[in-house]
Amino acid sequence: MRINGKPYRTIWLADDGWSVEIIDQTQLPHRLVTVALRSCEDVGRAIKSMQVRGAPLIGAAAAYGLALAVRENASDAAMARAIAYLAAQRPTAVNLRWALEEVRKAVADKPVSARADAAYARAAALCEADVETNRQLGAHGLALIRSVAAKKASARQRPVNVLTHCNAGWLACVDWGTATSPIYQAHDDGIDLHVWVDETRPRNQGAALTAFELGAHGVAHTIIADNAGGHLMQEGRVDLVIVGTDRVTANGDVVNKIGTYLKALAARDTGVPFYVALPHSTIDWSLAQGADVAIEERAADEVLKVIGRTPEGEIVSVEIAAPGSPAGNPAFDVTPARLVTGFITERGICEASRAGLLSLYPERA
Amino acid sequence: MRINGKPYRTIWLADDGWSVEIIDQTQLPHRLVTVALRSCEDVGRAIKSMQVRGAPLIGAAAAYGLALAVRENASDAAMARAIAYLAAQRPTAVNLRWALEEVRKAVADKPVSARADAAYARAAALCEADVETNRQLGAHGLALIRSVAAKKASARQRPVNVLTHCNAGWLACVDWGTATSPIYQAHDDGIDLHVWVDETRPRNQGAALTAFELGAHGVAHTIIADNAGGHLMQEGRVDLVIVGTDRVTANGDVVNKIGTYLKALAARDTGVPFYVALPHSTIDWSLAQGADVAIEERAADEVLKVIGRTPEGEIVSVEIAAPGSPAGNPAFDVTPARLVTGFITERGICEASRAGLLSLYPERA
Repeated sequence: MRINGKPYRTIWLADDGWSVEIIDQTQLPHRLVTVALRSCEDVGRAIKSMQVRGAPLIGAAAAYGLALAVRENASDAAMARAIAYLAAQRPTAVNLRWALEEVRKAVADKPVSARADAAYARAAALCEADVETNRQLGAHGLALIRSVAAKKASARQRPVNVLTHCNAGWLACVDWGTATSPIYQAHDDGIDLHVWVDETRPRNQGAALTAFELGAHGVAHTIIADNAGGHLMQEGRVDLVIVGTDRVTANGDVVNKIGTYLKALAARDTGVPFYVALPHSTIDWSLAQGADVAIEERAADEVLKVIGRTPEGEIVSVEIAAPGSPAGNPAFDVTPARLVTGFITERGICEASRAGLLSLYPERA
Repeated sequence: MRINGKPYRTIWLADDGWSVEIIDQTQLPHRLVTVALRSCEDVGRAIKSMQVRGAPLIGAAAAYGLALAVRENASDAAMARAIAYLAAQRPTAVNLRWALEEVRKAVADKPVSARADAAYARAAALCEADVETNRQLGAHGLALIRSVAAKKASARQRPVNVLTHCNAGWLACVDWGTATSPIYQAHDDGIDLHVWVDETRPRNQGAALTAFELGAHGVAHTIIADNAGGHLMQEGRVDLVIVGTDRVTANGDVVNKIGTYLKALAARDTGVPFYVALPHSTIDWSLAQGADVAIEERAADEVLKVIGRTPEGEIVSVEIAAPGSPAGNPAFDVTPARLVTGFITERGICEASRAGLLSLYPERA
């Protein structure tokens, strides 16, 4: 997507043809800084410090990290060390391990002299596949937004108001994003569109990342406290909700950033359609239902401390509660399938149910 | 209530018998600072700068402000000037005007020489009435918590987990608070109790004030992001919700801090009882339903900037979004009566409906 008119991806090969460049997401939204990664260790540090974050982007970065390692030493032993090192940087990231395995498979049967080229080629292909999947997903979502816009236009109303939670944006992927892909395509298509951006406490990914990327691409948006969405829906100021997801279980339950469930309840209570955008890789066919997912409890400091920019431009962390106040921080919640209007996937839109998912992915039956 | 063992109110007469002392709430939760107010203008500034806040406390402070004015000049003209001055400090605060009128009536028919004593006496009586109302309300709420505790004990479970939103605590009143009064009485009664405190973005009154006052009194509590309550209810970790309210309409709809509606939806979806604590003065018999209430839109800066304490102990405001990001800030929402299990008032507990309210306040029929 664009940042102030210039097209960007979150990760790309530098002009030298071998080093890898990224946007340092720990500096967003305060500063736009790109960083060159010149070794497997550079990539490992970027993943661990969350300069790159979001499951698809972590996978893409890890793939290039392995390519950088192979470029230095293409032996089986060195590759195994690099894979173990990269996988350890975010132990629970499934995409990371998957991407490393994809590169390893592409390289394993090649002679040592051909391995670096093969690794770079596979990393690039993984990036292109992510972009293409999200582009297709967005095209299906665009049709949905177009139909809402047409209905509103016939009632002489505009813009289409979309509410989103957290950052399921291009900054979490290579490009397009998941929940944001229909939004960018609608915007680029000339549809009059406005996005309500939940700030998404405690880590504020909505205020910091989603608002940044929408603003940089030129999409009209308004940041709101996570508390505000229900009221806006009551007032008829939201036409549809589109969120991303970390994991969808086989019955259609949606595991996503904490607070998603509350917005789904409000959407149901007020008759607002609630869609979840996801590529097929997010469907966990091995889990029967959301209740089977263990919810990660993260550090209390994420609730108690807020990172922001002082009037002098310094980035600091401040505490909002009394010294010693305890805090709890469940990171995700489960939105039951019954509250979800539909899934937007790269193969089309389906009902949030096992039958709905199987209608698009019959090979899983 | 107590702060680290010492009993406090939010406002009291100083040892000199005429000046008025308050807790400077703009310094909370970072510093406990008491301030002496020695003139009507001191009180006006304390109200305007929100050193005192919360409808009942603003009323109490205004009453003492008028008493301080009368002490200096008890003429009708000076009193009228003081009333106009104090009323203008928070133009929409209904309690402020009501309290000023109560003091004026108590003084108007007295000879000038007796007016100061009469004004102080009325101000003190208004404070006592606030304390007594909230004590009674809390006693009814205590019975409710006691029955939950008994049910849990018979299932060998504890503690009672109460979730609250915003600050309907003693810091907003003279003592006890509304939503917190049952909590303090249950705690003082030895009931094993734990409170989930919504941080309550954008102004963070939960994290800053409710958590401070609960902690200072010794009540076990945990601050959570506003996003987390629904998930905790899904997991069976909330036994009941108790919130305050800014206004209840004649049909039982509840106008309260933005986000209350979302918690009421989650409580209904998960079968958790949802109670609203209110003194009779909060019932607006003149409004038929919540949809008739205009919701205040407050400054975007409240969403975009967060006030906190640096590691060096400095209190600063930091921006969380990109420069120029727009934000929306509706301050209240309406929770429909259908989602409310009951009202806890100083006269007892009733259904959230016109019939329920009239059963406790038959004189309004």
